[in-house]
Amino acid sequence: LANNTWRTCSKSDSSGASNSGGESSKESSRSSTPVLDTDRTDRLRDKMRRRTESGDHWFSLEFFPPRTASGAVNLISRFDRMGSGGPLFIDVTWHPAGDPGSDKETSSMMIASTAVNYCGLESILHLTCCNQTKAKITGYLSKAKRLGLKNIMALRGDPMGADWEEEEAGFNYATDLVKHIRCEFDDYFDICVAGYPTGHPEAESYDEDLRHLKEKMDAGADFIITQLFFRADTFLKFVRDCRAIGITCPILPGIFPIQGYQSLRQLVKLSKLEVPDEIMRVIEPIKDNDAAIRNYGIEQAVGMCRVLLESGEVPGLHFYTLNREVATMEVLRQLGLWNEDPRRTLPWAVSAHPKRKVEDVRPIFWASRPKSYIYRTQDWDDFPNGRWGNSSSPAFGELNDYYLFYLKSKSSKDALLKMWGEELTSEQSVYEVFTSYITAQPNVAGHKVMCLPWNDDPLAPETNLLKNELDKVNRRGVLTINSQPSINGKPSSDPIVGWGPPGGYVFQKAYLEFFTSSENVTALLKVLKKYEPRVNYHIVNVHGQNTTNAHDMQPNAVTWGIFPGREIVQPTVVDPVSFLYWKDEAFALWIEQWAKLYEDESPSRMIIKYIHDNYFLVNLVDNDFPLDNCLWQVIDDMFELLDNPQEEQPAEQPNDEQSDKEQPGK
Amino acid sequence: LANNTWRTCSKSDSSGASNSGGESSKESSRSSTPVLDTDRTDRLRDKMRRRTESGDHWFSLEFFPPRTASGAVNLISRFDRMGSGGPLFIDVTWHPAGDPGSDKETSSMMIASTAVNYCGLESILHLTCCNQTKAKITGYLSKAKRLGLKNIMALRGDPMGADWEEEEAGFNYATDLVKHIRCEFDDYFDICVAGYPTGHPEAESYDEDLRHLKEKMDAGADFIITQLFFRADTFLKFVRDCRAIGITCPILPGIFPIQGYQSLRQLVKLSKLEVPDEIMRVIEPIKDNDAAIRNYGIEQAVGMCRVLLESGEVPGLHFYTLNREVATMEVLRQLGLWNEDPRRTLPWAVSAHPKRKVEDVRPIFWASRPKSYIYRTQDWDDFPNGRWGNSSSPAFGELNDYYLFYLKSKSSKDALLKMWGEELTSEQSVYEVFTSYITAQPNVAGHKVMCLPWNDDPLAPETNLLKNELDKVNRRGVLTINSQPSINGKPSSDPIVGWGPPGGYVFQKAYLEFFTSSENVTALLKVLKKYEPRVNYHIVNVHGQNTTNAHDMQPNAVTWGIFPGREIVQPTVVDPVSFLYWKDEAFALWIEQWAKLYEDESPSRMIIKYIHDNYFLVNLVDNDFPLDNCLWQVIDDMFELLDNPQEEQPAEQPNDEQSDKEQPGK
Repeated sequence: LANNTWRTCSKSDSSGASNSGGESSKESSRSSTPVLDTDRTDRLRDKMRRRTESGDHWFSLEFFPPRTASGAVNLISRFDRMGSGGPLFIDVTWHPAGDPGSDKETSSMMIASTAVNYCGLESILHLTCCNQTKAKITGYLSKAKRLGLKNIMALRGDPMGADWEEEEAGFNYATDLVKHIRCEFDDYFDICVAGYPTGHPEAESYDEDLRHLKEKMDAGADFIITQLFFRADTFLKFVRDCRAIGITCPILPGIFPIQGYQSLRQLVKLSKLEVPDEIMRVIEPIKDNDAAIRNYGIEQAVGMCRVLLESGEVPGLHFYTLNREVATMEVLRQLGLWNEDPRRTLPWAVSAHPKRKVEDVRPIFWASRPKSYIYRTQDWDDFPNGRWGNSSSPAFGELNDYYLFYLKSKSSKDALLKMWGEELTSEQSVYEVFTSYITAQPNVAGHKVMCLPWNDDPLAPETNLLKNELDKVNRRGVLTINSQPSINGKPSSDPIVGWGPPGGYVFQKAYLEFFTSSENVTALLKVLKKYEPRVNYHIVNVHGQNTTNAHDMQPNAVTWGIFPGREIVQPTVVDPVSFLYWKDEAFALWIEQWAKLYEDESPSRMIIKYIHDNYFLVNLVDNDFPLDNCLWQVIDDMFELLDNPQEEQPAEQPNDEQSDKEQPGK
Repeated sequence: LANNTWRTCSKSDSSGASNSGGESSKESSRSSTPVLDTDRTDRLRDKMRRRTESGDHWFSLEFFPPRTASGAVNLISRFDRMGSGGPLFIDVTWHPAGDPGSDKETSSMMIASTAVNYCGLESILHLTCCNQTKAKITGYLSKAKRLGLKNIMALRGDPMGADWEEEEAGFNYATDLVKHIRCEFDDYFDICVAGYPTGHPEAESYDEDLRHLKEKMDAGADFIITQLFFRADTFLKFVRDCRAIGITCPILPGIFPIQGYQSLRQLVKLSKLEVPDEIMRVIEPIKDNDAAIRNYGIEQAVGMCRVLLESGEVPGLHFYTLNREVATMEVLRQLGLWNEDPRRTLPWAVSAHPKRKVEDVRPIFWASRPKSYIYRTQDWDDFPNGRWGNSSSPAFGELNDYYLFYLKSKSSKDALLKMWGEELTSEQSVYEVFTSYITAQPNVAGHKVMCLPWNDDPLAPETNLLKNELDKVNRRGVLTINSQPSINGKPSSDPIVGWGPPGGYVFQKAYLEFFTSSENVTALLKVLKKYEPRVNYHIVNVHGQNTTNAHDMQPNAVTWGIFPGREIVQPTVVDPVSFLYWKDEAFALWIEQWAKLYEDESPSRMIIKYIHDNYFLVNLVDNDFPLDNCLWQVIDDMFELLDNPQEEQPAEQPNDEQSDKEQPGK
């Protein structure tokens, strides 16, 4: 119905709950995916409606695009951190002067796309239409759609010059943009528009402004976010006035926690708002005390939000963050809206791209590099049970744009050298870097190792369970980059290993992935014979020399969950095929992220290069998840065999240390 | 390769191991099915090759089509029983005079189809070509292909009259039939041909006969089964002679355990064989002692088979069963070839139809009526994870040919009346029938209740684990028709509940399905509120009045297995949609199988009719599989509430027995 109406470009009230997009009906025919979380398939307006109906309050967060590439890296990290508190959505503003629709890492378009695709955040992209051609706007919208963006904040934007006049066939008001979106894209986008609790500064009157807002809704907008305000009453009167003229959609108050004297003055100037006297009276005396102002801002915002929420008129709060974390998080914490213990839908963060919402299996290999996995599989049409599906996906070597900002290390070259060693003298120095990372103890130079090329974050709480064992084996050159303990039916609500809906049970097979020398691999293969068929293994070097006991190259499910009234969910697999793609990436990281820190031909670079060229990447799965993890025993047995080779092979020379002779740096 | 060769009808040696059929490659692209058993996807000649290569001996069984419908029912039961011993295949003979290609329940075609589709047995259909037109033969082959038959035993057959002469363009020899099959059906069928260890009775010479056999192989046959013989040497010489002229395919000896004097004489006459003196000398004196002759036959066959197997020339033994069980099973037991503890690939028997080989999920409802499930879903193109897929599948009411022989009760009307009551006096008499079935104790008339309309066999060993609880609830009108206990990770090799490959773990959620009165259901629904979300339920009456707490009508996996190096397998689900189809069948069985045993308008029929019209069909799943099954507690709570209604509902009359007033027979 909605589609037909908009296709003919007639006006329509789209505040309804239609969910009849072609896309979602296609998704629902994908019968093999048990939907663990309705939120994953709903569109934003439906999520809002459901949350509102359940009486559940939510919050959302507004950001502006960064000015620099390193600002972008920081903002993406902030998305990850603030995303964990559970915003219903985030939105990214649009600044016509800043090339907002380009492919630059700092553009509004790319930042919003990253939030959706890589951070898994439901996102709204702002779009202003003033002084833009229809073709240009359609181009932006098509690009947004292609990138997986589903929500637009339709704004007029500020006229470029002082002599702005209405254009006959152009965009003069946000209403024109709303109509244009509905006309060109049917019901594809959810559309948000701006509300002005004190009236738009350029409007003839408050009532005139309300009528404009009603026109925006009639043109097909779905909900309203208001400009900031300083008194709860201002907003509540505005809502009453909206309802009185027939605006029935959700109206979200824009909350601005005062964070500093200058930023307040600047914002007020831009938005032509007046700060109430009772606030100015408090602020003026402390205007040079940033901490005091911030504390006051938090207190003021919390008080106002409490009034709003208690009014029953406010389903959710929208925060103008100014790209800062502390004040907004503190307000949300005090309101009890910040999710301190976010439930994971799946063991990995689900992307918010409409095409990927149904994705429910991934290979375990990219567990610490989820953004890389998403990047490399972004062109897939569907997600075939964690196998490496579309063979036309870019291989690691072909990733010319690999150094996209969201795949970069968050640390500087200097910081990396401090962590990973200004100078390496042997393979042993590399082992020590791994050990420092595992144990969170400072390295020989006194620096903590906070990341490795394969792990941009410190050890996960789950991996911490294995810390002692990991420490022991890394010291001896079993360089672990990924692992998980076995789990035999822990509640899905478990704070460390739980995921999925309540009342379920989660399971894991123990997993261990590491680089190690060919000498170690030779011993390991002998040892593994004793562990057939309990342990599955894949062992490969950079040249693709590959040894496995996988049955018919089938994937092995290593994480699964059993939930009330649902089919089995198996979100993580060890897939023999995708392992060979991961292998390329895992080996390349030695060179791209580590070796290149050092001069060409330097001993340090040679040592890393030697490891890259000669070590093997090994993964092990213990299939007997109800028993004690045997993988440490496997490694112990390997060390035992290396230490006492004569016991297994009486014909050989007992002194096998000779074999290390030709390695560099020894 | 093979396909191309045969398409042009040139000769070909097809003893190779090509498995390049379009079908199997299509199957292998079905990525969501972890292949638990390579046998499920291989064709017969590949299974043979694999077994031969592994040095593993097998057996196969030959049957002839029955003369009567009840003979067909018996033969199908025999297939199920003898199938459990693990034959590599069975074959069904072809008798041109008996309308072998028709749809009659006794035809060779329908018996072989039933063996494949309903009993899950790899089967070979015999086909004789003598005096048949090519069109007729092609018609038979097309029908066989349509029914899922993949293997043909190509025979000339006996000429109809004594004055048979070669026809110029017709089928004169089995070779012509083999060529025709390869020409018309490429490599679709595996083809078996007959070998004559003492030469074909009509052949000019033994050598001439061997040359004919070589021609059959060159025309595209895959393997040979020999005519029966009485001395191991006869067969071993034959094999040597075959190898000498370049016949390299498997040659299976046809074993005939002597089972009686008359049957031996008849067979010998038909096959124009001579019985060796040393056998006649033993048999003649005991020819009127059937038991003695059978014992000798077993002893003789076992001795001969041992020599054959020890020769190293015999990969498998083919038995002429004469549609009898005892002698063949005894020979196989003594040889150690009978599988006493058959491993289940899945909890239910997998159909051998090529289209269904990949089927890996079924609704639990048809657990006791697998043939009905297969019948009702036979036209599905694929098997969508246990959901009721193709809505054009026949509804139960539309099953005009429902009373196909393989869906009939194995018991006569007389036997059923003895078990289920010559005369019913109240609903209570029905409860007692259920209780007798559950407890395996005789009913009031002294007869054991061996089946119910929903269960044609006595209680499964697994259900026996629940016997005490089932006994208790059936006495009180909770009429159970399906149940399984919860299982939390038993080894896949467990003799009662295990299935799938070794080294795995199997799990179940407790399940209970029963009919019960609307009064009970009212109490049950109150009780179930306490068990949210632990217990999922579906409650429906014959009119489709349906109550459930299933999430979004999603299926609930109730049986699953975790295996080394594989994805999760979940072969049984409770699917809300297919439950409504099952409901039609489950209610109809009250009328079709039980009520109709009694006169129209008789009190007995009225009682069953009352239950059919007024009772509800209930299923319950306890999602908390690691805890003790709570479903019995649910039922206990229901009885408690019924016994003491004032405790829950102080406003109501305590005397609720009034509500039974209007029921018949009380």
